[in-house]
Amino acid sequence: MTSLSMIEAAATRLKGHVRRTPLLGSQFLDRIAGRRILVKPECLQHTGSFKFRGGWSALSALDEATRKRGVIAFSSGNHAQGVALAAAKHGAPAVIIMPSDSPRIKIDNTRALGAEVVLYDRAHDDRDQIGAELSKSRNLTLIKPFDEPQVIAGQGTCGLEIAEQARELGVQKADVLVNCGGGGLTSGIALALEGHAPDMRVRPCEPVGFDDVARSLISGRIERNDRMSGSICDAIITPSPGEITFPIMRRLCGPGLAIPEDDALRAMAQAFLRLKIVLEPGGAISLAAALFHGDQIDADTVIVVATGGNVDPDVFARSLETVTA
Amino acid sequence: MTSLSMIEAAATRLKGHVRRTPLLGSQFLDRIAGRRILVKPECLQHTGSFKFRGGWSALSALDEATRKRGVIAFSSGNHAQGVALAAAKHGAPAVIIMPSDSPRIKIDNTRALGAEVVLYDRAHDDRDQIGAELSKSRNLTLIKPFDEPQVIAGQGTCGLEIAEQARELGVQKADVLVNCGGGGLTSGIALALEGHAPDMRVRPCEPVGFDDVARSLISGRIERNDRMSGSICDAIITPSPGEITFPIMRRLCGPGLAIPEDDALRAMAQAFLRLKIVLEPGGAISLAAALFHGDQIDADTVIVVATGGNVDPDVFARSLETVTA
Repeated sequence: MTSLSMIEAAATRLKGHVRRTPLLGSQFLDRIAGRRILVKPECLQHTGSFKFRGGWSALSALDEATRKRGVIAFSSGNHAQGVALAAAKHGAPAVIIMPSDSPRIKIDNTRALGAEVVLYDRAHDDRDQIGAELSKSRNLTLIKPFDEPQVIAGQGTCGLEIAEQARELGVQKADVLVNCGGGGLTSGIALALEGHAPDMRVRPCEPVGFDDVARSLISGRIERNDRMSGSICDAIITPSPGEITFPIMRRLCGPGLAIPEDDALRAMAQAFLRLKIVLEPGGAISLAAALFHGDQIDADTVIVVATGGNVDPDVFARSLETVTA
Repeated sequence: MTSLSMIEAAATRLKGHVRRTPLLGSQFLDRIAGRRILVKPECLQHTGSFKFRGGWSALSALDEATRKRGVIAFSSGNHAQGVALAAAKHGAPAVIIMPSDSPRIKIDNTRALGAEVVLYDRAHDDRDQIGAELSKSRNLTLIKPFDEPQVIAGQGTCGLEIAEQARELGVQKADVLVNCGGGGLTSGIALALEGHAPDMRVRPCEPVGFDDVARSLISGRIERNDRMSGSICDAIITPSPGEITFPIMRRLCGPGLAIPEDDALRAMAQAFLRLKIVLEPGGAISLAAALFHGDQIDADTVIVVATGGNVDPDVFARSLETVTA
């Protein structure tokens, strides 16, 4: 089980290897939202998403002999790249199992980072089974994308930075909006803030139709999504919250926000115009919530974790059309 | 005349008001270039370009009574926004004289930042004369875009950061590529590096057809461009290097690099793909030089100052087509 001290230990291992992303703001965004918005652009992290934090944390926590045998991960693309780069920098082999409908840039990048990529069909194959079999046959260590204590600890380092950077700006109380798939980042940030910024509240953000976490927080038990494809927010589409992450989120997070996908495209355009950063749809749902769904938010200040920027050019071009049309 | 101590004094005045932009890198960019590339993304600076540094430096250096009467500036857009925001934050009125063919986003933003905008025709009007008349009639202080010691000092703070951040990465020797209009940033960075990283060499980058600085460095006297419009690199199109900036550049900088505009579009696409930042064409010429014109570079490490990101969506969409076509 991940604890604050595990997150702090991960932060020590990550130091010098992971980027400390800044905390950005723009009065133009504040005007749209009607409140102060601070954006943590994890798209600027190595490999273009926060996932490198968890990848580095997990790899650096393995003993040397285990690490040298290699690791395996399954991911729609951002965890894939995070683990692939962390493995490459540790000199460890990596096998990555990816859905065949992942954005091409993510598949290409994962291969270019030196990993062996195995594709599967998101609708019909069971990625857990594929992962378990490969892991066993080659004696690889499985690095799960979210339900893994050292991965959660790595993602939690983002929360330590948020607490410190917000304090420097005089912000102690805020809603912290986090794009949420399985809940690794959300639960890690929540644990970090519980210890270092207890007046902040973490709220998971998901696309409409894939709001398993929001529904789970309401019902009090793990709910599942009806489908696993058909969203442009591929980075945060998971079947359900994790068995490790959900109890943390249930204790510390909510209520969740379910945001229409089209608003993610509009938010990407605002991030382009006002912050000069590139977000992918699944990395912009939280910004969309802050900008366009403020009626569901009470806090005077909102901290938006903009989780990733690995988007194909044609999808990004669609987002730009929302401001030129 | 700007000195290192003026730059250091400006850094003190800027502290807490100006963003310390990170120093980014990507092994994908290193592979294209065949050498190590570090990118200083000044597009992430307030108002989307380095110009806020000079604006804040100039405004903060005025005495209170002068500042309250107001300031005036002429600019294709980035200096406009930098001065407008710096003035607004100091509670000073600002009049900005802009070419009528400036990107719409720059004109709109300058107005939204609270400044009064006066448009002129870049091909036929004399902006210096317009500025001088308005300045006199309303008793405003003219903040020149580059040939102004306190503006150069402000831009030079970017060089102080480069020296420190490169040192943290173990880099002491490098070619520093700077997009160059009138030479305010280029000369400021050169002065800062002369003091703090003397093994680095600053090289001005300009679009082909507008390489007044490169030609001036060769001839040893101030050369002019034949034309003042017709480039997508609007941010760095100026008639000639400044009378203050040129002697500094002549002593410390060169040789210059003249880069085709189309390569700036290709570099913008790589910044999108690999760094997740938004650059404008005039902010990407230096990256284009590093990525696609390495035959003109000897250094093992290149530091690219990516100077701005205020680009209209349709131009950015054109850059994306360079990787989808």
